[in-house]
Amino acid sequence: MDSIFLKNITLDGKQVDILVKEGKIAEISFADAQDDKRCAQDDKCFVLDCTGKTAMPGFVNAHTHAAMSLMRGIGEDMVLHDWLDHIWGIESHLDRPFVYSATKVANLEMIKTGTTSFNDMYWHSRMAMKATEEIGLRGLFSYTCLDNFDPEVTARQKDECAAMYEMVKDNLGRQRFAVSIHAVYTVSEPMILWATDFARKCGLRIHIHLSETRKEVEDCKAAHGGLSPVEYFDSLGLLGQDVIAAHSLWLSEKDVEILGRRGVSCVHNINSNLKLASGYKFLCEELKDAGANVCLGTDGCASSNNLDMLEAMKTTAIVEKAWRDDPTALPLGDLLDMVTVNGGKALGLKTGKIEEGWDADIQIIDTDSSFFLSPAPFLANYIYSAHSDCITSLIAGGRLVMLDREVMGEKEILEEGRKALEIIVNQQ
Amino acid sequence: MDSIFLKNITLDGKQVDILVKEGKIAEISFADAQDDKRCAQDDKCFVLDCTGKTAMPGFVNAHTHAAMSLMRGIGEDMVLHDWLDHIWGIESHLDRPFVYSATKVANLEMIKTGTTSFNDMYWHSRMAMKATEEIGLRGLFSYTCLDNFDPEVTARQKDECAAMYEMVKDNLGRQRFAVSIHAVYTVSEPMILWATDFARKCGLRIHIHLSETRKEVEDCKAAHGGLSPVEYFDSLGLLGQDVIAAHSLWLSEKDVEILGRRGVSCVHNINSNLKLASGYKFLCEELKDAGANVCLGTDGCASSNNLDMLEAMKTTAIVEKAWRDDPTALPLGDLLDMVTVNGGKALGLKTGKIEEGWDADIQIIDTDSSFFLSPAPFLANYIYSAHSDCITSLIAGGRLVMLDREVMGEKEILEEGRKALEIIVNQQ
Repeated sequence: MDSIFLKNITLDGKQVDILVKEGKIAEISFADAQDDKRCAQDDKCFVLDCTGKTAMPGFVNAHTHAAMSLMRGIGEDMVLHDWLDHIWGIESHLDRPFVYSATKVANLEMIKTGTTSFNDMYWHSRMAMKATEEIGLRGLFSYTCLDNFDPEVTARQKDECAAMYEMVKDNLGRQRFAVSIHAVYTVSEPMILWATDFARKCGLRIHIHLSETRKEVEDCKAAHGGLSPVEYFDSLGLLGQDVIAAHSLWLSEKDVEILGRRGVSCVHNINSNLKLASGYKFLCEELKDAGANVCLGTDGCASSNNLDMLEAMKTTAIVEKAWRDDPTALPLGDLLDMVTVNGGKALGLKTGKIEEGWDADIQIIDTDSSFFLSPAPFLANYIYSAHSDCITSLIAGGRLVMLDREVMGEKEILEEGRKALEIIVNQQ
Repeated sequence: MDSIFLKNITLDGKQVDILVKEGKIAEISFADAQDDKRCAQDDKCFVLDCTGKTAMPGFVNAHTHAAMSLMRGIGEDMVLHDWLDHIWGIESHLDRPFVYSATKVANLEMIKTGTTSFNDMYWHSRMAMKATEEIGLRGLFSYTCLDNFDPEVTARQKDECAAMYEMVKDNLGRQRFAVSIHAVYTVSEPMILWATDFARKCGLRIHIHLSETRKEVEDCKAAHGGLSPVEYFDSLGLLGQDVIAAHSLWLSEKDVEILGRRGVSCVHNINSNLKLASGYKFLCEELKDAGANVCLGTDGCASSNNLDMLEAMKTTAIVEKAWRDDPTALPLGDLLDMVTVNGGKALGLKTGKIEEGWDADIQIIDTDSSFFLSPAPFLANYIYSAHSDCITSLIAGGRLVMLDREVMGEKEILEEGRKALEIIVNQQ
């Protein structure tokens, strides 16, 4: 299908037609019964009657570990230390086919919950890229530097990272490649310096975990002459507009100032942070005011336990209001920015707005339910009341990836996922 | 239909058949192809093939204001004082047909999200009872005492309460009647004393708001010689096993001891408390240990913004873990008790377990989705990963109120709701 014509869809309260062409929003016009002639002349155009439906931008999940979709619920109600041992024990047995199948399942779930692009960090990334390219979403995938301070591993990972980039760079399709520096507590200084330099030379984004727990910050200060993870990374020249920093949770005033000045994309992962009891006082407002780009992510399913951004949005907003003791904190528009334009900026995609010339990442929403039966603005009902199953169809980068809640190949994806799961079950 | 036969359903990991008769779970037997003969001989028995589906008890929503379903999202991002003025201004215009239609919408939403019984507090309760009786759920409805310390209103409300009880007591159907004492800041001492006495004489439960905000506690102490709302109500002889105390949030150690000793049902309303920034440190463990009956509710849609108990369960658990800085806090089994057996105990219903002799309140769950594709226990996937749309069919007090996500009369309920909404829209 060369183009998609969304007929009679509600956008910002108005009835419009939207023409999607070559991955972009080509034209938005006031709805008119004659208009579809423009499309009907072209038999490669798919016309979708959206009467009674509302258009919203697709979500950007700015931090996840997609292949953990098959590890959800492992180690419920465990303390972090035991949980990590448990997860790492299992991960040591995962192979490329597992990552492929598990990322397919993750893509399926992201589609069902309205996400059109995401920022991934995991092993065997080429398999994750392949799975995502096939199903139609867009992801930022990386080689993950995690040398555990072992010089032999550092040397090996430099080679692997460079080799993976060589292999994928001319074969990316709709996907993108980045470099991950796992965290301050798992990556050596030589590795950090090399990875930062390599990413900058190649024009790649850098994906890191940053100040996720109080312990991480304390340990870093003890190891690096009193420097916080933010200060330490900054002293190595790592922080910049090309950096996506997951969590960014335990921050001093100075940390906030640095992250703002460097224009880092800071990704809040509310459900994971709450469930693992990592913390919940994300300095959304302060980071924004300082100049940082605040985004939202789900983290991996092993901790968060799903990839539902709409659920994450509600939890983010109400927890923010509660801990600040201020019901006016984090208004709906700011929250929407976090999961749309801000996420797009982080990933380097022109996504997050339904305007001509922007990437065609569009949710088509059914408002014919009790959840939308209210005098409140659409956004309030969408975020605070509805669930992601209100998203009936989804266009990702111009491709129709879900129609009436059906995703192509869904049964097979779940079936393959079930088989891949056996690896984990055998490790339990 | 006299009986329902759930064939081949998964219960606690085993395949069973469940026979529902006269509102009760009549028989549970190991699944056997021959078994449905028992049912087939009776042409008034409806056989439902549940192969691949899982049975769970229906939820008890232990505190809500059902008719606020049409007021969701009113006053988003407002401070409490402005919000209350806004809501009360609108409520002063609501009439009996509004409450009827809005409660129908609430029932529809509760069915779609797996709730089979609920504890309601609102005006024009007879209309709410009628709506609920018609659709098939079971509710505890009350006359709400709220005299605003005006002796004339006290006298009028005594009469109205007694008159309403006389009118409904022999005509309850599957519904129950209670007395509500709105809150310490809205009800005079003579009214509290009279209502308590009246409820006890008639064997009715008492539904109250208790210690919802820090301000409520401080104001109460100032007004009543240093007594907290718990201590004050207890000094009047109000607290007992027949009391359902919504919120119970801002409690001293002494308050917890009193609520435990009196065996009060304390209802946590996580989403409402977070969103209005009322607080979030519910003393679940402490209350339970002291002897109180801890339950969960959604509160009204104006503050919470939906009636989804599964969503409330997840938020409750992860917020509890976060503020206690303990990922092992509130394990899944305890959480499930709050929304099932504990809720049943609060309302005086034998609901919350799928065992012979218990009320037939049963969710039928489809686990064929990514959300359940994991090696984790069913409960972990159900609470932390899935959404309420996994509940495909629902039996409430022996009646099949939803089949394959369809509720009888759904279109008409939404249509009537839309009309009723005009009252509010005209007040905006």
